[in-house]
Amino acid sequence: MLNPHFITVSDCLRTQYALVRTRSVALSEPLSEEDCCVQSMPDASPIKWHLAHTTWFFETFILEKFESDFHAHDPAFRVLYNSYYNGVGDKHPRAQRGMLTRPSLAEVLAYRSNVDDRIQTLLSKHDLFSPHSTELAMLVELGMQHEQQHQELMMTDLKHLLSLNPLKPAYSAEPLQPALTPPAITWLEFDAGVVEIGHASDSFCFDNELPRHRQFLEKFSLASRLVTNGEYLEFVKAGGYKDPSLWLSEGWDWISTQHISHPTFWHPAQSAAPAEKPAGWLEFTLHGILPLDLHRPVTHISFFEAEAYARWVGARLPTESEWEHAAGTVEMIPGNLEPQLHPAPYDHHTALVDMFGVAWQWTSSSYAPYPGYVSAEGAIGEYNGKFMVNQYVLRGSSCATPTGHARVTYRNFFPSTARWQFTGIRLAK
Amino acid sequence: MLNPHFITVSDCLRTQYALVRTRSVALSEPLSEEDCCVQSMPDASPIKWHLAHTTWFFETFILEKFESDFHAHDPAFRVLYNSYYNGVGDKHPRAQRGMLTRPSLAEVLAYRSNVDDRIQTLLSKHDLFSPHSTELAMLVELGMQHEQQHQELMMTDLKHLLSLNPLKPAYSAEPLQPALTPPAITWLEFDAGVVEIGHASDSFCFDNELPRHRQFLEKFSLASRLVTNGEYLEFVKAGGYKDPSLWLSEGWDWISTQHISHPTFWHPAQSAAPAEKPAGWLEFTLHGILPLDLHRPVTHISFFEAEAYARWVGARLPTESEWEHAAGTVEMIPGNLEPQLHPAPYDHHTALVDMFGVAWQWTSSSYAPYPGYVSAEGAIGEYNGKFMVNQYVLRGSSCATPTGHARVTYRNFFPSTARWQFTGIRLAK
Amino acid sequence: MLNPHFITVSDCLRTQYALVRTRSVALSEPLSEEDCCVQSMPDASPIKWHLAHTTWFFETFILEKFESDFHAHDPAFRVLYNSYYNGVGDKHPRAQRGMLTRPSLAEVLAYRSNVDDRIQTLLSKHDLFSPHSTELAMLVELGMQHEQQHQELMMTDLKHLLSLNPLKPAYSAEPLQPALTPPAITWLEFDAGVVEIGHASDSFCFDNELPRHRQFLEKFSLASRLVTNGEYLEFVKAGGYKDPSLWLSEGWDWISTQHISHPTFWHPAQSAAPAEKPAGWLEFTLHGILPLDLHRPVTHISFFEAEAYARWVGARLPTESEWEHAAGTVEMIPGNLEPQLHPAPYDHHTALVDMFGVAWQWTSSSYAPYPGYVSAEGAIGEYNGKFMVNQYVLRGSSCATPTGHARVTYRNFFPSTARWQFTGIRLAK
Amino acid sequence: MLNPHFITVSDCLRTQYALVRTRSVALSEPLSEEDCCVQSMPDASPIKWHLAHTTWFFETFILEKFESDFHAHDPAFRVLYNSYYNGVGDKHPRAQRGMLTRPSLAEVLAYRSNVDDRIQTLLSKHDLFSPHSTELAMLVELGMQHEQQHQELMMTDLKHLLSLNPLKPAYSAEPLQPALTPPAITWLEFDAGVVEIGHASDSFCFDNELPRHRQFLEKFSLASRLVTNGEYLEFVKAGGYKDPSLWLSEGWDWISTQHISHPTFWHPAQSAAPAEKPAGWLEFTLHGILPLDLHRPVTHISFFEAEAYARWVGARLPTESEWEHAAGTVEMIPGNLEPQLHPAPYDHHTALVDMFGVAWQWTSSSYAPYPGYVSAEGAIGEYNGKFMVNQYVLRGSSCATPTGHARVTYRNFFPSTARWQFTGIRLAK
Repeated sequence: MLNPHFITVSDCLRTQYALVRTRSVALSEPLSEEDCCVQSMPDASPIKWHLAHTTWFFETFILEKFESDFHAHDPAFRVLYNSYYNGVGDKHPRAQRGMLTRPSLAEVLAYRSNVDDRIQTLLSKHDLFSPHSTELAMLVELGMQHEQQHQELMMTDLKHLLSLNPLKPAYSAEPLQPALTPPAITWLEFDAGVVEIGHASDSFCFDNELPRHRQFLEKFSLASRLVTNGEYLEFVKAGGYKDPSLWLSEGWDWISTQHISHPTFWHPAQSAAPAEKPAGWLEFTLHGILPLDLHRPVTHISFFEAEAYARWVGARLPTESEWEHAAGTVEMIPGNLEPQLHPAPYDHHTALVDMFGVAWQWTSSSYAPYPGYVSAEGAIGEYNGKFMVNQYVLRGSSCATPTGHARVTYRNFFPSTARWQFTGIRLAK
Repeated sequence: MLNPHFITVSDCLRTQYALVRTRSVALSEPLSEEDCCVQSMPDASPIKWHLAHTTWFFETFILEKFESDFHAHDPAFRVLYNSYYNGVGDKHPRAQRGMLTRPSLAEVLAYRSNVDDRIQTLLSKHDLFSPHSTELAMLVELGMQHEQQHQELMMTDLKHLLSLNPLKPAYSAEPLQPALTPPAITWLEFDAGVVEIGHASDSFCFDNELPRHRQFLEKFSLASRLVTNGEYLEFVKAGGYKDPSLWLSEGWDWISTQHISHPTFWHPAQSAAPAEKPAGWLEFTLHGILPLDLHRPVTHISFFEAEAYARWVGARLPTESEWEHAAGTVEMIPGNLEPQLHPAPYDHHTALVDMFGVAWQWTSSSYAPYPGYVSAEGAIGEYNGKFMVNQYVLRGSSCATPTGHARVTYRNFFPSTARWQFTGIRLAK
Repeated sequence: MLNPHFITVSDCLRTQYALVRTRSVALSEPLSEEDCCVQSMPDASPIKWHLAHTTWFFETFILEKFESDFHAHDPAFRVLYNSYYNGVGDKHPRAQRGMLTRPSLAEVLAYRSNVDDRIQTLLSKHDLFSPHSTELAMLVELGMQHEQQHQELMMTDLKHLLSLNPLKPAYSAEPLQPALTPPAITWLEFDAGVVEIGHASDSFCFDNELPRHRQFLEKFSLASRLVTNGEYLEFVKAGGYKDPSLWLSEGWDWISTQHISHPTFWHPAQSAAPAEKPAGWLEFTLHGILPLDLHRPVTHISFFEAEAYARWVGARLPTESEWEHAAGTVEMIPGNLEPQLHPAPYDHHTALVDMFGVAWQWTSSSYAPYPGYVSAEGAIGEYNGKFMVNQYVLRGSSCATPTGHARVTYRNFFPSTARWQFTGIRLAK
Repeated sequence: MLNPHFITVSDCLRTQYALVRTRSVALSEPLSEEDCCVQSMPDASPIKWHLAHTTWFFETFILEKFESDFHAHDPAFRVLYNSYYNGVGDKHPRAQRGMLTRPSLAEVLAYRSNVDDRIQTLLSKHDLFSPHSTELAMLVELGMQHEQQHQELMMTDLKHLLSLNPLKPAYSAEPLQPALTPPAITWLEFDAGVVEIGHASDSFCFDNELPRHRQFLEKFSLASRLVTNGEYLEFVKAGGYKDPSLWLSEGWDWISTQHISHPTFWHPAQSAAPAEKPAGWLEFTLHGILPLDLHRPVTHISFFEAEAYARWVGARLPTESEWEHAAGTVEMIPGNLEPQLHPAPYDHHTALVDMFGVAWQWTSSSYAPYPGYVSAEGAIGEYNGKFMVNQYVLRGSSCATPTGHARVTYRNFFPSTARWQFTGIRLAK
């Protein structure tokens, strides 16, 4: 999965490792012990758990294999911080992660330091071009990519937790500027034909992006930008959540049973304050509760909502192959260079914009193995393959995705009801 | 969807109509009023409800449109026997279908006679080649195909109901002959290339089989026959239900929570009677409870179980395109000419056998619209499209499928946990 | 529990037996097989199951003990029709009673005939004054009382089932006369003092009415009659279901979660038909759906609703001892001599009316053993004692209680949320 | 409820107030922010929430009424920390208390300081013998008693939380001495007669202990001491959890469904370490996980378990009147003067021991109003009365009950399945 040749010296990998690992702790710094401990729902995990689990990953899959005198930092952590790797043994139940007030945050940070020191020592001792070291470098790369995934989850899990608090606390006190008026959507057309899909180069990718293979695409068009809050609000106002003919049957049952009538972090404005006037709606963000910005892309949208919206406007969601083919074909405007706490769209009137760095984009594709897919041997093989059922693929990346983590062939996936990620809508025809 | 040209005279359609409608009533004849009334689970419906709902379909979509002096047989039935058509108005809640001890079975049969008479009158009055009549003929054809689907459900819903009865009653007293030893599986190979998928001719098909379109298939192989009870029993004995590495994560959670350790209608044999010796297992069938016949195809298998079994033997499930391409390419042995109460495999040593008439075959394909799919206008458009999420496609047909109902492009679909249909396993590589 | 001396000849018991047994079958006669088979909720049982279970009771507790050459009518019935007697062995799960489309109603009626013949033979052969025969007579008496209890449940379980049918079918086509205007409630006063509670004579009673013991009652008053629909409607109109201060905390949670805003069989009238004018409400009855009769006693009231209503009018529910003491002390107007399908109040302006034969009356007393209570040995001991927790005592009897079944010391009991029995409100102060 | 005459000077009340309030904070001192924030189940609350809610009680019911220039410390807290007082307005949902990572623990402690200062100022300004001040003194007394109740809950809720942690952390590192061998149970006998029940003096009591009234008790005997772990272990070993004849029907369903086979904090010992030998069981305590001490009273027992155990030994649970009459009649050994973290029994061979300060004792009495009970006006009236249904009374006090909080007439109450309180068994006959 990784070609070690791009790592010219082990120093490079050690530096990257330190940067990734430091960023996770930095994300937790504005937070109290309590903020880091609580679990807001079974699908989300506490910040502290993320900090510990990403460390467990390095300890379990690297130190245990490469340290000659390996001993666990704490044997209990093997169970406490195993997420879903049956091949490694028992796991603390997912829904009970928030019960772990011990080990304390300080103990988890000490665990991180201990494992970091040992990884750095390990890397400094290895000639990364030997065959054995190639595996080491590949696993460290995997661990870093894994940690980046958890960095995004830290932000979305935290946002969900804070959203449940009636005080609507802000993660960041920094003010947010209103977005500019977006250009009208234009449609980029693509011809029918056999295309190649999947990761091609020798740079890092996850196993679910392989093997590269051929697919036949019929002619299609892709929207130049994402759907905005303002556009989505028209759907809400037009009774989109009350018309069963717009919804998949299971989606209709879901919004009916759960009493869903708008995106998850929207709130009807109750005051007549001018700031709230434009929309009549507020939105909970990591910057606190704010008037809904009609010019920003709509986010925190489930697959069912994205699919119903697309039907309402006479369009559809793209397949993941269409998305990937388009992204690899035409000019794209480079996305945000640094992650943001809230989606910031680009102001470009041509080209495909916001493919990356703004909002994950639902596709109509069920998450499934590519033809010829083989998962890795052992517990590492549980990383991706076993989730390939009843989930839908999202493409691109979001404002919360770490720098350098996204790529054209990247396959994110969530169940059709997931709403707490930065998920948005790009239309196709 | 239907080319009326094959209907040379309206007599032909009237005869077909009478045959289809008569068969539904005939299926219920060995049953008591009680057998026909009870609902065994929300996913299943009472026999009496099937008899009424299929009639409602003709009344609502045909009589209401084509009768100049239409009046409902009973206005209450419009709600009682609407399954899921939001466009038609209110529906009696699905999980409450078994509460309808009234209208009585006799009243439902009277409803059938009344609607049958009116449909026959209608058909006898129309020149089926006029444009308006083309639509009539197409809707009658759709109604007959719809009724055939319910005929299969009548058998599987009834089997589920009877299976819950500790007395394990038989629907049919006829004895069942042991199956012959099946030949070894052989693998038929298919080259990579662009193929055409979807219904092509002008004969009847459902909207989900359209439009015919191109796909690129990588090289693949398909197993010559279905997996047998005997082969599946090896998987059970080898601890297949206890090894998480064989299962999709959601499937593992499901079998753990539901305490599933074997196919749904299998029972460990408790006596030492010689008849039960071969397998040590019994199987509940529509012929009553019988020793498990190791030579018959395994059925009543969920997608999760099919997928895990395939992994265990080092194979996989086919995609629906692979299945359809293979079925349209190579020689097939014609299936059973008449539906059976229990899957009867063929004894052929070459060719693709049991593609039809034995067991529906799980594919790895999520149920999704074909490129360019458009559902019909109005309530009829709710027939297929709104179910295209979180379900998996099954191909072929089963022993319970009515004669003439199956075809190569047919797309059946069920959720990944469904077990009460005659569903089996054909492997691919 | 039973003094056999009142049975002067075995003929008397045989006649009583025949009358009781015949009545159960008679109750089912207006019903179809389907009506008799379906189970509307886990708390209710199918009519056919009641017919079989009451027969099982005689077979299991009498024939098995007294027949020298006993053999079960059908060994499978031992499990199928055991309700809750762990001492007898396995039980078919309560919530699955409605799945038993087999044995058929005809088979159950044949079971009844067989057991009836054998009981009659047994009784004709015994000198009922021998010690062994005393036990026989006592068990037959218990079986008859048990069957009478199930006769009442047959009517209430059936009413619940029919109420779920949108057609609102009537069990009886007989019209119902409007009730007369009831007199105002008067309050009968009782002095403080030590009283005796519990069954005293040597006639039949259940074990939960024993032993007779002393209690001290403070001064109290009891309402002369039951609360009417009209009075209860005032509570509904005054927002009684919207004011948490009127409700026990658990009751408030229950009505909030279940969206309960009126008695269970009431329906807001939708038409402006004059017949529905008086109340604006309809009520589902065994005579079909009718305008709510404001002069009849309110029934199908849960403990929570009874308790909230009493608080709203500045009164309370009586304790069971207060009720029993009052009933044994003052003049009562004799109740209905025959069971009715709907509560018919008496038109008397003095005395305690409607203590029996109209509606079971909730008391504030939790169902608990009397001081010195001992349950019977063996499975028969499971009849009452094991239910003495988290239920509330009801006193009197209802319009559905068989003639001769009620008495002053009788203790009925249901959970605080039960609404499908003929349960009403008599106030105390 | 309170006679202010015992408060000779307002200084006395101010001192008591300071002591009670300080103790709550002291209980939380060994804990981290995280320990104080997490909610382990809907029935339990976070420590931080207890600290805030008890403060809310003083602010809402006293400062708001008696401060002439009242303004809320923070208006949001009115909703956040309201437990169940509908009369005060909205409430944060009980099951979501653990989501409140903000306000921080420091902010809650600041809230406490602010309210404490204002209460002290208020008390210093009032002549506590004026009529208005009598109400003030009564409400302060109620607030202190309320806070003491929460102090006990803080310990039991914390114990439940820590018990869910696989690390089994100890609240206190102090070692626990083994208990002495207890004396055999002796039975104290009491004659039948009319007794007076309920609070009599003019000292503080809760409204549910009033009014004092008469009851008739039949002759009964009460066990001299509580049931020990060793005695209860005999019940476990003898298959007590596997024999339905010992259980109330609802209790049997509950232990079957929940897979309960021993007291909630017991764990089968897995090692063969000598320390674990005596019992083969460990017990989780606030001192950490320890070998089960067979000589200590069994605690964390549900009503269902207590009742089943009593039946197994041929005894029963006392009624609450029997308990109160006995406690007021015979010599009792004074209990622990200070609360403990684990129940410590007394070593006395005569008299009624351990009536207080060890374990709450289940009675067979459903929680119900005494004859003539009237709850207070307004929101304070929601304190007790609205919980009087489907709960059982416990008498005495536990090792976690604050000094001075217990009395003979005190009525504690919990549902029949509650296991996380220090609840034990005293037998009666």
